Amino acid sequence: MNALPAHVDIREVGPRDGFQNEPETISTAAKIDLINRLARTGLRRIEVASFVRPDVIPQLSDGVEVLQGIDVPDDVSLMVLVPNSKGLDNALRIRETFSEVAIFVSASETHNKRNVNRTIAESMADNEIIAKRIVAEDLRCAAVIATSYGCPFEGTVPLRHTLDIAEQFAAAGAVEIGFGDTTGMANPAYVGEFFTAALERLPGVEVTAHFHNTRGQGLANAYAALQVGCTSFESSFGELGGCPVPAGSTGNIASEDLISMFHEMGVATGVDLDAVIDAARAAQTVLGRKLTSHSIIAGPIDWSPTADAPSCR
Amino acid sequence: MNALPAHVDIREVGPRDGFQNEPETISTAAKIDLINRLARTGLRRIEVASFVRPDVIPQLSDGVEVLQGIDVPDDVSLMVLVPNSKGLDNALRIRETFSEVAIFVSASETHNKRNVNRTIAESMADNEIIAKRIVAEDLRCAAVIATSYGCPFEGTVPLRHTLDIAEQFAAAGAVEIGFGDTTGMANPAYVGEFFTAALERLPGVEVTAHFHNTRGQGLANAYAALQVGCTSFESSFGELGGCPVPAGSTGNIASEDLISMFHEMGVATGVDLDAVIDAARAAQTVLGRKLTSHSIIAGPIDWSPTADAPSCR
Repeated sequence: MNALPAHVDIREVGPRDGFQNEPETISTAAKIDLINRLARTGLRRIEVASFVRPDVIPQLSDGVEVLQGIDVPDDVSLMVLVPNSKGLDNALRIRETFSEVAIFVSASETHNKRNVNRTIAESMADNEIIAKRIVAEDLRCAAVIATSYGCPFEGTVPLRHTLDIAEQFAAAGAVEIGFGDTTGMANPAYVGEFFTAALERLPGVEVTAHFHNTRGQGLANAYAALQVGCTSFESSFGELGGCPVPAGSTGNIASEDLISMFHEMGVATGVDLDAVIDAARAAQTVLGRKLTSHSIIAGPIDWSPTADAPSCR
Repeated sequence: MNALPAHVDIREVGPRDGFQNEPETISTAAKIDLINRLARTGLRRIEVASFVRPDVIPQLSDGVEVLQGIDVPDDVSLMVLVPNSKGLDNALRIRETFSEVAIFVSASETHNKRNVNRTIAESMADNEIIAKRIVAEDLRCAAVIATSYGCPFEGTVPLRHTLDIAEQFAAAGAVEIGFGDTTGMANPAYVGEFFTAALERLPGVEVTAHFHNTRGQGLANAYAALQVGCTSFESSFGELGGCPVPAGSTGNIASEDLISMFHEMGVATGVDLDAVIDAARAAQTVLGRKLTSHSIIAGPIDWSPTADAPSCR
């Protein structure tokens, strides 16, 4: 077995992917406060907004106010998601407030059609133009491929097909490709195979893992990706968001659970786990409901010898 | 990377380890019904009772009635847990109702003292006598070592020390040794190292993994053990029981989540996943509260192409 990577990068996606999926709209002030907290945990990558039609995703309609209102340290890189050229136009009006732009497509034809009402070819033709514009603006272009490990409509999605799309993105200027487990269909054996192939086929590109915890397998998938050399991960504080499908399921893996597992294995993240748990607890207070992350309850593991630890038989 | 094992054995521990941790006592009739259901899912190993003092664990005081009341297929092996010679005496009064006996100790001196008020040496002296009696009765002797991967009181527990205890158990007649993650301190990197060493030092002994999902890492640990050749696992339907420490935490990994992950990787369990989910839902009804397993909500992954699957962007 190979040694594990010594260090990984984690992108916090809760402010976009998490808040988007909340049934109640979160106030702009609360969003700003939570992002400011996250930006002081050592997390150096945060996805904070998306420029989508407000009638489609009203939860994120205050993206401009959020981006203009937050105050984050200089070494924190902020990402926005754009679905099309119009979204990029809108984002570029506040060009100075972020440094990374994510564009996306689904690996599954049916899922792409349902999601954005276009074929993959149509989406990619547009994405190539958008990617070039992003690069020309001296912004970092990251691409996301949804349903990378399986599709709820089509079932199996061929690995080779997903990586073909990834190569198209890379050729158009994306320096990072994220592979999303949109409805939680990935398993660790396939993830090991997938990331081995992805890292081989995409030299010079940052290959990012984005898993969901739909059936409790999210961290097992993260471990499998790590084992074969993946060092870039996305997760969401409080286990917010992702794709709550089937209804009531959890989506994204929790940042604090992922960070806890990495730290326990001696894999550095640069993140203060306690601070992320505090931020997740603050989100819990804002949302007024119990979040499903495990570490939010259990806290970090305490390895110091102590006479009065809680235990049980 | 080595190929994964083609088949694993799973012991369902919910009826003992799960029911023991419920704040409200479950009726004997409900226990019998749930065990009878579990025994018809393809699970061929079930821990059903423990012979402990009823004033200490009142939740399991009806062990005799449960064992005499259940009706399970002949190929299902039932296990009871005994803490000491007196417990074994009581169990042997209904000798014909089970076929496996579990005995235990903690790898941590402090945890053992808190749990059974004896030193490890005192516990092992007694365990050696009990193990020989179990073998003499033509019953299968399985030993469990609690706090195998870390102790809430002592912190680190040396691997070598834990395996020394395991060898003592094996010498006394235990044909299976389970390594318990009592308070959820294991991580997948250590688990890989641990089971590699355990399988090497315990030839001819069945080496069993028992993980908790305290910080969401339970299935990652199971995957790590599987990767290095472990083929025996314990889990609990509905994610019941285990050690809810810190308070409110989850304990045991959920049988249905574990089975889902194994099946998705092509690792056979012999178990009908849908039937286990049904049993977990029945337990949810009996207990009158939402259980924390993921598959109880999400159900098994559906890989068949379908036009009307749930999805999300």
